[in-house]
Amino acid sequence: MNLPQLHRDTEASSGASVVLTTARDAGVGVCFANPGTTEMPFVGALDTVAGVRPILGLFEGVCTGAADGYGRMAGKPAMTLLHLGPGHANGIANLHNARRARTPILNIVGDHTRAHLKYDAPLTSDIESLARPVSVWYRSVARDTDLATDTADAIAAAMGAQRGVATLVLPVDLQSARIRGGASPAVVRPAAASFDPERVERVADLLLGGDRAVLLLGQRALSARGQRAAARIAAATGAACFSETFPARAERGGGLPDIDRLPYFPEPALAALAGRRVVLAGALAPVTYFGYDGIPGELARPDDIVMLAAPGDAADDALEALAERLGAAANDQGVCVERWQVAGGPLTPQAVGCVLANALPDNAIVSIEGGTCGYPFVTASARARRHTILTNTGGAIGQGLPVALGAAVACPDRRVFALQSDGSAQYTIQSLWTMARERLPIVMLIASNRRYGILQTELARSGLPADTPHASRLTQLDDPPIDWLALSRGYGVPARRASDTQALVRALDDALAHADGPTLIEMQLS
Amino acid sequence: MNLPQLHRDTEASSGASVVLTTARDAGVGVCFANPGTTEMPFVGALDTVAGVRPILGLFEGVCTGAADGYGRMAGKPAMTLLHLGPGHANGIANLHNARRARTPILNIVGDHTRAHLKYDAPLTSDIESLARPVSVWYRSVARDTDLATDTADAIAAAMGAQRGVATLVLPVDLQSARIRGGASPAVVRPAAASFDPERVERVADLLLGGDRAVLLLGQRALSARGQRAAARIAAATGAACFSETFPARAERGGGLPDIDRLPYFPEPALAALAGRRVVLAGALAPVTYFGYDGIPGELARPDDIVMLAAPGDAADDALEALAERLGAAANDQGVCVERWQVAGGPLTPQAVGCVLANALPDNAIVSIEGGTCGYPFVTASARARRHTILTNTGGAIGQGLPVALGAAVACPDRRVFALQSDGSAQYTIQSLWTMARERLPIVMLIASNRRYGILQTELARSGLPADTPHASRLTQLDDPPIDWLALSRGYGVPARRASDTQALVRALDDALAHADGPTLIEMQLS
Repeated sequence: MNLPQLHRDTEASSGASVVLTTARDAGVGVCFANPGTTEMPFVGALDTVAGVRPILGLFEGVCTGAADGYGRMAGKPAMTLLHLGPGHANGIANLHNARRARTPILNIVGDHTRAHLKYDAPLTSDIESLARPVSVWYRSVARDTDLATDTADAIAAAMGAQRGVATLVLPVDLQSARIRGGASPAVVRPAAASFDPERVERVADLLLGGDRAVLLLGQRALSARGQRAAARIAAATGAACFSETFPARAERGGGLPDIDRLPYFPEPALAALAGRRVVLAGALAPVTYFGYDGIPGELARPDDIVMLAAPGDAADDALEALAERLGAAANDQGVCVERWQVAGGPLTPQAVGCVLANALPDNAIVSIEGGTCGYPFVTASARARRHTILTNTGGAIGQGLPVALGAAVACPDRRVFALQSDGSAQYTIQSLWTMARERLPIVMLIASNRRYGILQTELARSGLPADTPHASRLTQLDDPPIDWLALSRGYGVPARRASDTQALVRALDDALAHADGPTLIEMQLS
Repeated sequence: MNLPQLHRDTEASSGASVVLTTARDAGVGVCFANPGTTEMPFVGALDTVAGVRPILGLFEGVCTGAADGYGRMAGKPAMTLLHLGPGHANGIANLHNARRARTPILNIVGDHTRAHLKYDAPLTSDIESLARPVSVWYRSVARDTDLATDTADAIAAAMGAQRGVATLVLPVDLQSARIRGGASPAVVRPAAASFDPERVERVADLLLGGDRAVLLLGQRALSARGQRAAARIAAATGAACFSETFPARAERGGGLPDIDRLPYFPEPALAALAGRRVVLAGALAPVTYFGYDGIPGELARPDDIVMLAAPGDAADDALEALAERLGAAANDQGVCVERWQVAGGPLTPQAVGCVLANALPDNAIVSIEGGTCGYPFVTASARARRHTILTNTGGAIGQGLPVALGAAVACPDRRVFALQSDGSAQYTIQSLWTMARERLPIVMLIASNRRYGILQTELARSGLPADTPHASRLTQLDDPPIDWLALSRGYGVPARRASDTQALVRALDDALAHADGPTLIEMQLS
């Protein structure tokens, strides 16, 4: 957060420009926008307040997902600009994911002029009821004199102990109100994250006492430093290490330790944790993704769980303190970067994982949505060059492409990949257009198996047949097959198809040779 | 609503099949679905309970918008099938439109198994808070023995006095519960709509007393019968007639009177109503769409408004009673069907309106979204063959294509057109795939002006420049231009482009010659 600055103009400013100036002075530099009539003064202010880059999305879920990806990589909020309750509603699913990721977002929703609300005009709705479930903070600005402080409060809340989505509703009359300029209010800086040394002692005692343990890592524990410390602890004590199944962000490869994700399905997850203390380092207590008959919802008994660091804590510092306390050797537990030998032949998910792991340049970012190729890739990518993965934290699908978009805006010097299942890509397919418009060199890999693979798996788990007429038709996407090349070109994104490993290698080579815009590769899976 | 029937099987049924059987027996025959893991027992039951047709959407807004279009045409609810809070959230915008249209919808949302909710797993959210703003009725089923009655209550609520969206949440454990078969509970039939004779007397007295009036028609007043009665009254008294600006459904053409919509912008709307009594027949009191500086939110003073029939009343019967009471002549006030002479040349919105009006076959249905061509078309279509128009009632955009989809499912013997602006088409573009999949012979006319025209107009109205860099970039859609032909083919829908009136005439001729699936025509507007 920057220090407050004087407004550039001492003349009266519009309310919207006060909001924008306050946000900009607090470090908010990007606005993912899908505005409507009630946001026009805000749009106008974007031309008078320098320093906030507006990026248009054709659908609100693109904007909120992009703000999530941006926030995960930048560590500070982007703002959105959404049109009333219905526009905000289209952004809820990806705000739900951002809530689970603890991503700071300044979620700006325009509203009718205050005097108009009582008429219940067509677009009027209960914005608060729609926004509360995904927001750590909600306020509709009540007075023009509150605009600056409410904006500062929203940013402070987004960055605060309960990091997440702060929703600020701006009635259009307040956006266009004339307000005397002044200094932007200071945004309360969040206290630096810390950890509790007593917890370190307690965990140290358990481990030194011979308890078999699993370290479950989330949030800051998945930084490079956190993972190195976790690996030292593991080497010294025999503890196992897992990342939470859906990390908001994890560093991978480049000599880091090989820490895979806790399995998604409950049986292997239970097996991984059985008979061990579960030490939480920035992760929540593990629960099954869905409730299953005869399987406990809690993957570890509460008595077996011990918290080293909560999700908002400095879990990396806590892990380092624990490693020191245990006298764990400081030598590197990382794995070497090496290329996978990939045989020529059909595109299996495992082959896709290895080919992509081989292709990643230094400091790549990979947004992963969908299990088909996601799990094999993460398993393979421990031996790739250093990169960052971003996953779907809340299960609301349609997250992978917008998150890649936002990450590319946040990190213009890094190459961004989206490893994306075909079914979930459809929910926010309009992302392609914004990627093309902003010339973002994102490489999209669409895992085209023309079905909702997870649902066919879950049908089988439930003992239900997947091949009866309706069940089959509700989980198959092959009638008609989506022509990904045509669709991609429709949005201005060049595309090609790969049906075997050699073709995928070539397609990735070609995509990486171009840095002037996005590319889509349809991977026809076997 | 049909009478209750015995379940086919006397064996125990799944909870999901009890819900489906109850709904089917009450006349619900279609399910617009985008299921996830927590809806798999429901998907399985679709194969065991005959009589409910599942239709898959790639995005939930397609499902809810289609249910809206279906309900408007069928006069009874379709059901949806959505996945937890985030899946429902993607459907909210079109449920908002359905709420404003008073469309009956049985909105089914799956939920976690009840015992799992306390773990706050990734997909858990406050479904009730998200659903209440768009629902006239909400219930999460609490016990297996309530499944049938809760379903019956939901359908009764959807069809009741406050017609609209009834949201029924089905925890997955209740979907798979084993329940003894029995008769489906009777759905309480809604009381037949009626009207208040005293209101007829009051309005008659005002009109006979010489008051100049405007009849503002909505809901059942926009049936053929309602409009004919309104025209008789107008001819007898000098009253003017308008449809509400965004009718859920209105019959048009084929010799019906020429009743245009109340203008959208406040100045001409105020002029149309100035100095007149406003007689509400199935319409709400007219208010401005947005609040504007210096313009009253109420387009008519409350003292000047008199209600003949509320939106839920039998406004058509009330108008007929009023016509009789006034002794209005029963002769037809309709206009003749005649073809517009359209000069060759560029595709202006007026030319598009006339060409489409000429092309409509008998009993066409036209879903209209976007003002660019929508207003000129409705003005022109008074002289077309008999057809039905469906408009965007709630202002949440992304409604036109799904509504066309649902209308085509409800009315397989009628040709359906979607007259659709390009910007708003993008919000639920995945509709194309379901249209292709279900071989629905819908003709989509995309008005491609590559901008958010309404926003440029509203910027100008606000005195804000539309040509400054950011304002321009946030309202222009030409970088990159969307290639509608590629996009359409990507979803399996054949497409062609028309840049002048002759090309549009030919494209419509060709589209109408094929009834085996959808067609898209990109209209490049001048």
